[in-house]
Amino acid sequence: MKILFEKGEVLGLGRKFVEVTGRTITYVGDERPDGCFDRVIDTKNKLIMPGLFNTHCHCAMTLFRGYGEDMPLGDWLNTRIFPAEDKLTDRAVYVASLYAIAEMIRNGTASFTDMYYFCEETAKAVGESGIKANISRSIVSFDEDIDVTSDYRFREGRELFENFHNAFDGRLKVDMALHAEYTNVGKMVRAVADYAASHNASVQIHLSETKSEHDACVAKYGYTPTEFFRRNGLFEANVTAAHCVWLTEEDMDILKESGAYAVHNPASNLKLGSGFMPLARMLEKGVNVSLGTDGPASNNTLDMIKDMYLASLAQKGHDLDPAKVKAQDIVKLATVNGALSQQRPESGSIEVGKRADIIMLDLDTLNNIPSYDPYYTVVYSASGRDCVFNMVDGQILYENGEFKTLDVEKIKSEMKDVVAHYFD
Amino acid sequence: MKILFEKGEVLGLGRKFVEVTGRTITYVGDERPDGCFDRVIDTKNKLIMPGLFNTHCHCAMTLFRGYGEDMPLGDWLNTRIFPAEDKLTDRAVYVASLYAIAEMIRNGTASFTDMYYFCEETAKAVGESGIKANISRSIVSFDEDIDVTSDYRFREGRELFENFHNAFDGRLKVDMALHAEYTNVGKMVRAVADYAASHNASVQIHLSETKSEHDACVAKYGYTPTEFFRRNGLFEANVTAAHCVWLTEEDMDILKESGAYAVHNPASNLKLGSGFMPLARMLEKGVNVSLGTDGPASNNTLDMIKDMYLASLAQKGHDLDPAKVKAQDIVKLATVNGALSQQRPESGSIEVGKRADIIMLDLDTLNNIPSYDPYYTVVYSASGRDCVFNMVDGQILYENGEFKTLDVEKIKSEMKDVVAHYFD
Repeated sequence: MKILFEKGEVLGLGRKFVEVTGRTITYVGDERPDGCFDRVIDTKNKLIMPGLFNTHCHCAMTLFRGYGEDMPLGDWLNTRIFPAEDKLTDRAVYVASLYAIAEMIRNGTASFTDMYYFCEETAKAVGESGIKANISRSIVSFDEDIDVTSDYRFREGRELFENFHNAFDGRLKVDMALHAEYTNVGKMVRAVADYAASHNASVQIHLSETKSEHDACVAKYGYTPTEFFRRNGLFEANVTAAHCVWLTEEDMDILKESGAYAVHNPASNLKLGSGFMPLARMLEKGVNVSLGTDGPASNNTLDMIKDMYLASLAQKGHDLDPAKVKAQDIVKLATVNGALSQQRPESGSIEVGKRADIIMLDLDTLNNIPSYDPYYTVVYSASGRDCVFNMVDGQILYENGEFKTLDVEKIKSEMKDVVAHYFD
Repeated sequence: MKILFEKGEVLGLGRKFVEVTGRTITYVGDERPDGCFDRVIDTKNKLIMPGLFNTHCHCAMTLFRGYGEDMPLGDWLNTRIFPAEDKLTDRAVYVASLYAIAEMIRNGTASFTDMYYFCEETAKAVGESGIKANISRSIVSFDEDIDVTSDYRFREGRELFENFHNAFDGRLKVDMALHAEYTNVGKMVRAVADYAASHNASVQIHLSETKSEHDACVAKYGYTPTEFFRRNGLFEANVTAAHCVWLTEEDMDILKESGAYAVHNPASNLKLGSGFMPLARMLEKGVNVSLGTDGPASNNTLDMIKDMYLASLAQKGHDLDPAKVKAQDIVKLATVNGALSQQRPESGSIEVGKRADIIMLDLDTLNNIPSYDPYYTVVYSASGRDCVFNMVDGQILYENGEFKTLDVEKIKSEMKDVVAHYFD
């Protein structure tokens, strides 16, 4: 399969032809490449850019989008989310995952990082849809004397890895996941870290999301959650740490030294009252940062372009400085950094030899005119709704309102059915 | 003209029929009203709600959307915006206003409040489009010995009022406008206040938008911008004060006593690094608050639903409290309070006797499923892009992708033409 994108505006590169052969970008240049093409794609009034990497999500929580809002965090979790999650079933997670994937594809996402339960169902949905994902089974542990080898959560995490890692031509990767410091004992952290390091798996964690969890850790151990994870060997593995709102300078140094990725979740951090991740400071120090939506119950959409906008606005507003964090840097978080955080160095940019994860935004919508600089248009004017084309690994998943791999009307109707009976 | 909305979900009211006769809502109820209808409107999977009131804008700045970003405020104004505004022409303002109005109609706006230049052009665009607006000529004055009666800016403001106030069946109102404290002398404030009070005109101002302007006023006069305006008699008139980021408790008391409206501009306040308006505190004190996008150069879209979301998130994030400011209160800012700030008590809600300013949001988009509570859907999941129907004063302006009063392709093409030659 050989596909040619007609000469069009490529983000950061100016007007170029782009050729895709199989799942790989084989030409980016000024001259029309020779040869026959199975498809020639119209790029008029479109912006060609890399597909987006949503590096922290709980995608099946589409089920709980808007199920309780404007509540104190504890009440929301204890009276709404935890009891609702207690009713999860295979079918609910499968339908809700497929639904979330449709929403992500529609909004220009190429790949997502997910931590949740019933992960085989999410794996199945990833397989069917054509999207990429790094999924993980969330592990919690509360007993200091736990026998980690027999713990069912750790076992399920390992089984998921053994059964699904690198499935679907590598579109699916399996990470390990430790829910957070306050929900795990050191022994489990060490066990997961060892397993991950020896299998070159990444480990997803929530890190210093709220001030209270961060402070409680310091009160309990005398050191921060980041230091807790360091002492238990976690940073021997590849780590993707979501939120990172309350990190100290020393915590950032630990992340930087280890090459871990901090995932910025601006919508969730604002909406749940968690606070402001020190994005500008982290970038200044050279910490790796990527971007994520978090679950749809705390966002409430799966639109990475909205989170790019929020990442910029939150920093500028918090620092009273409109010059803080440039649009180009925000785009980098959502593309190349996201791919690297997923151990996908072959993705994240439009370059010869890279995977063909390519989206196009419509520049002819009312909100995108005028466009003096495409970076400004993407970050400040655009919406995921402007995505009119989404190709992942060379396969077109969405084009001009049409899903190519998913029956979205069926998925919607199944979702409504699951929701209608969920709380029976 | 008699129009019936089939029984459908009306925000805050449950499933109701809504009948519109001429420009007025004549029935809201459970039973289908008798009679013949010129149109029966399908409301399946739609949310019926009041049209949105965007109460602070500089709509012709669509011209400068994305023209310079990520810059310190002074640089942005002095090297980008002010030189660009110096080149404004009648035609540019007309085209850019019409363009902005199309974008607002598309996103569910019923009415907007505008402060700018070449206002006759914006008036013309309001007339043609069917939208409502309160427009004003921005007045600045720097000479303490100014002869206000002969000042051309004040004269143009008065002429605009005399020529256009209550034009187009009252869809257009003309307000007076004092740009800000730091751009005006007390003598001009008194003159404008007197004129406005005696003509029952509202006065639009920018108030304590940035810390530096607020502090500079205190250093210069020994009191705040709000107190400066109070001492010069401004609060004898109806006042719509944009931004209000750095108000003191005493400033809020002045606003409250006078019945003035503070306009919250969350996108602009974050993006320009102005700060966080104390929304929760103002609501607690009983200050009147409405919502606005500000100009598209500092937002960068004209989507009130996005600003509703940001108003909520900014407050929750700033206060580290997810329970701060409920979705219902946010909707109130954007509807009934907005209408009141414009001296349009006949608008802003879906009630018998009120003006038929009615929009419908598509609840069947991927981002709006599930919808456990329509208020949560509007504020946390929806986008202006979900607006599929916009009726103002009983006239349908937009329906399912089609503009009924505007030739949007022509407007786009004229906009591109103006932009292409603007900086020649």
